[in-house]
Amino acid sequence: MPHRPSAEIGAPLAEVDTPALIIDLDALDRNLQALPKKLAGTGVQLRPHSKTHKSPIIALKQVALGAAGVCCQKVSEAEILVEGGVRDVLIANEVVGAAKLRRVAALARQAGIAVCVDDAGNLAELEDAAVDFAARIEVLVEIDVGAHRCGVAPGKAALALAQVIAASKHLSFGGLQAYQGAAQHVRDHAERKRAIERAVELAAETKRMIEAAGIACRRITGAGTGSYAFEAASGLYTEVQCGSYVFMDADYNRNLDATGNAKPEFEQSLYVWTTVMSRPSAERAIVDAGLKAFSVDAGMPIVTDFADAVLARASDEHGRLDIVGKPEGLEVGDKIRLTPGHCDPTVNLHDWYIGIRRQRVECVWPVAARGALA
Amino acid sequence: MPHRPSAEIGAPLAEVDTPALIIDLDALDRNLQALPKKLAGTGVQLRPHSKTHKSPIIALKQVALGAAGVCCQKVSEAEILVEGGVRDVLIANEVVGAAKLRRVAALARQAGIAVCVDDAGNLAELEDAAVDFAARIEVLVEIDVGAHRCGVAPGKAALALAQVIAASKHLSFGGLQAYQGAAQHVRDHAERKRAIERAVELAAETKRMIEAAGIACRRITGAGTGSYAFEAASGLYTEVQCGSYVFMDADYNRNLDATGNAKPEFEQSLYVWTTVMSRPSAERAIVDAGLKAFSVDAGMPIVTDFADAVLARASDEHGRLDIVGKPEGLEVGDKIRLTPGHCDPTVNLHDWYIGIRRQRVECVWPVAARGALA
Repeated sequence: MPHRPSAEIGAPLAEVDTPALIIDLDALDRNLQALPKKLAGTGVQLRPHSKTHKSPIIALKQVALGAAGVCCQKVSEAEILVEGGVRDVLIANEVVGAAKLRRVAALARQAGIAVCVDDAGNLAELEDAAVDFAARIEVLVEIDVGAHRCGVAPGKAALALAQVIAASKHLSFGGLQAYQGAAQHVRDHAERKRAIERAVELAAETKRMIEAAGIACRRITGAGTGSYAFEAASGLYTEVQCGSYVFMDADYNRNLDATGNAKPEFEQSLYVWTTVMSRPSAERAIVDAGLKAFSVDAGMPIVTDFADAVLARASDEHGRLDIVGKPEGLEVGDKIRLTPGHCDPTVNLHDWYIGIRRQRVECVWPVAARGALA
Repeated sequence: MPHRPSAEIGAPLAEVDTPALIIDLDALDRNLQALPKKLAGTGVQLRPHSKTHKSPIIALKQVALGAAGVCCQKVSEAEILVEGGVRDVLIANEVVGAAKLRRVAALARQAGIAVCVDDAGNLAELEDAAVDFAARIEVLVEIDVGAHRCGVAPGKAALALAQVIAASKHLSFGGLQAYQGAAQHVRDHAERKRAIERAVELAAETKRMIEAAGIACRRITGAGTGSYAFEAASGLYTEVQCGSYVFMDADYNRNLDATGNAKPEFEQSLYVWTTVMSRPSAERAIVDAGLKAFSVDAGMPIVTDFADAVLARASDEHGRLDIVGKPEGLEVGDKIRLTPGHCDPTVNLHDWYIGIRRQRVECVWPVAARGALA
């Protein structure tokens, strides 16, 4: 059972119970509009990654603003997106095992579904599932362009998989998944740019080999919020998969631009709303949000509403603020915002978004794909 | 909506879809039985902390084996425990804000509820809620015995709160919450022991002051899986709050005993079940479990079923295994177990426990208090 939301629609922000995941709706709207404007004229399509928001409601807003469709990572996420009204989903990841592949094929009867492969055995199983369901599934070959996670090596190995897909009756070859995930959080702008230039070279050479074999390579897809401008300007990528731009987080906010400044292109719109639950000393305040309310894999959240405090330690249910400046304020019962260190896994801890505009709750949205693991 | 469980009862383990949270039921049963046996004859009661398992089903097993009741950290957890049949719950934490305090008072009409305080204003609000509901609530004063999280200083500050509680018509003074959380993961046995000896001194002195003021101080409660033997032998603590002993994790398994060995008293019974989803090279395998399937706050999970691999990096949906020994094995589609780094926040990421005995699914239990934040 999901938990009850921590606020009723219409309530003032001050009455929203804590911990809660709140969205600044004005900032979200500006972010949603800003990225399509930045891409206008490039000929590159936006296919936002829904792994950030996990919400068909926000996905449909992205589609309404011109997105070609969305990405996700898991079959269960794709099912929730399609159920929520999204018609075009790229599972930007491999799907392994006959049980999950059956679900991909079943879903491909309901909506446009594409999926990635990097293994011949897996590809054969995908074809079997497509045959069983008489489904038509678009398949992209994932190549490793520097992130060293999944993906075959660029070049011959990718061509070999593309040839198998192109020869299949039920699968169609869509192109290349070429996501340089490791580049997204490289702080230095020039270094980030070089990593993407290398990815572009590898993807371009692979595309040339595939086309030389007589196979059309329609889509080159990848990129994230940290690097998308480079892929969009490459003349090669046809789609960018930015996800975090809708919310942003402390980690992305530390990326530097070409002038060496940490001036994010997008606004922080996502916060963890928390209450001071104990104030044992002048130097220490304890808030009611800990590891169950925010992720710490990319560092601690920032204490947005109290500049003189740092979140120094998190346990399951507690965050310890060390007060480095003047100790006044932060009384027991005070509510403050934290900026998450990493938005995606923080969102995954919450059942509900509480949407705030003009200091009031305007909407309560389920985090529909929270915990969609499989 | 919770997600569908990844297995049907009766299925073989090999068919359990991934990622999934699996329990070795034989090991769980042995852990559940072992701790009460270790405490037998000490006169100290077991009040297990349910923040580990988040499950009334497991809580009731603990009660059936002699536990006095259970602990939790949040009102929403207490509600789920009482709804699940637990009759005696200590919220081993402060509860702040009128809305949550109303829920404590309402719940105290349904079951035996105790709660902690460390602030006079919060105590006054708790009393107001108790009056409104004509509820009788037991209150413990939390003292800081070295963890430097919540809690008033031992001594006079605790006495002052105890006197206010003792004078209340609706609140009853239960004693002291004296949990030395910071000691639990101190690796060295002697150092861990010294930390608890200091906690015992502080709690004993506070108890003496309260009793000298004519107030009975019935309960001294605290302790965790890492330190409970010291509190149980102290002659002071009346209850121990061990939680992790049911499951254990990589972090607790690193604690050293008196002989300097990492030989845990309890067995590992909790695992993340995962599939190899990509095998890009001899040195690298990618599994389908990442930050959404395990927490990394206490370090990476251990690759239980493949000694020659370490989980080197986790992204949202992927775990990268670096293969340090011989590269054979770990083919795409192989399923293996990971031992979580930290059990409590790992459990919080899953909707279901898949209970395994004799390589078969014996039960599928909801993680009922997953995401119970408020």
